[in-house]
Amino acid sequence: MRVLGIDPGSRITGFGVVQVLRNGRIEYIASGCVRVPKADLAGRLKTVYDGVAEIIRTYQPTVLAIEKVFMAKNADSALKLGQARGAAILAGANQMLDIAEYTALQIKRAAVGKGHAGKQQVQHMVQALLGLSSAPQADAADALACAICHAHHAVGHLSLARALPRRKSGRRGMRLPL
Amino acid sequence: MRVLGIDPGSRITGFGVVQVLRNGRIEYIASGCVRVPKADLAGRLKTVYDGVAEIIRTYQPTVLAIEKVFMAKNADSALKLGQARGAAILAGANQMLDIAEYTALQIKRAAVGKGHAGKQQVQHMVQALLGLSSAPQADAADALACAICHAHHAVGHLSLARALPRRKSGRRGMRLPL
Repeated sequence: MRVLGIDPGSRITGFGVVQVLRNGRIEYIASGCVRVPKADLAGRLKTVYDGVAEIIRTYQPTVLAIEKVFMAKNADSALKLGQARGAAILAGANQMLDIAEYTALQIKRAAVGKGHAGKQQVQHMVQALLGLSSAPQADAADALACAICHAHHAVGHLSLARALPRRKSGRRGMRLPL
Repeated sequence: MRVLGIDPGSRITGFGVVQVLRNGRIEYIASGCVRVPKADLAGRLKTVYDGVAEIIRTYQPTVLAIEKVFMAKNADSALKLGQARGAAILAGANQMLDIAEYTALQIKRAAVGKGHAGKQQVQHMVQALLGLSSAPQADAADALACAICHAHHAVGHLSLARALPRRKSGRRGMRLPL
């Protein structure tokens, strides 16, 4: 199973792709950001939509996992976030991907082991879990955390605590105890 | 020039299509609503996207006019509205339509002649301006008002006051003094 995690934003949309192997290992495939240029609204939304669509064509995931939003600082930022989020979800839905939503709490628990974690903690843990040589950019790390969260849920709500000790040092990726 | 006006919403998205004729008359073409069923988020956004895309294929407008949103009662409704709005705009942008945004003030001024008007006033004036036999449904009327607003701006910011006296009774549509 290949999972695309998306961290949508009106300026930067982070993405992260992981592969869940048959033996339960989660392997890093790719991550990065779609940066939205200064343009009119339609142009900005099309950048997000086309960017996510291109990532899907390139990495062929079967699921798009995205954070459920409850918060939103204010109505204006919520509207902008909603537009970008809608564009990313549509790019997935139009390519027949399943769409899975997780709360921030679920995502942080999956990546860091606790619900309240800062950006840097998420970056650090995603790097450790996937055996990366450096920490991913913050939005890419959030997207990878979202993909890892889906991988956990998809293989049976397995806890990070059980998964971690089985990770082999020196190998990319974490193993889920199946 | 054919204009598609869109009044996006998380439950109902109104649409209205008008044709601006060479003699300046604005002719009613079609209006209605895309009703979003109870489904998961991706399904709901795809309903809006596919619905607007189908309307574009059917009526072949060259411009999509949509209300700029400043207000939004709260962050949660703003997020939902943003997602639906993003889906509608993308449907237009993906079919290479120009996207035009107008404030609620501009739209109500174009349709009713003043910035502060209730839903019923907009319905009544849209019916009168386009010579319709009955008032359009509220969301469809807002969408038609948005399309009329774009028609006014496109032909040179013409005022309703100048346009109204030239409308021939008994004929569908209003004439803009070119």
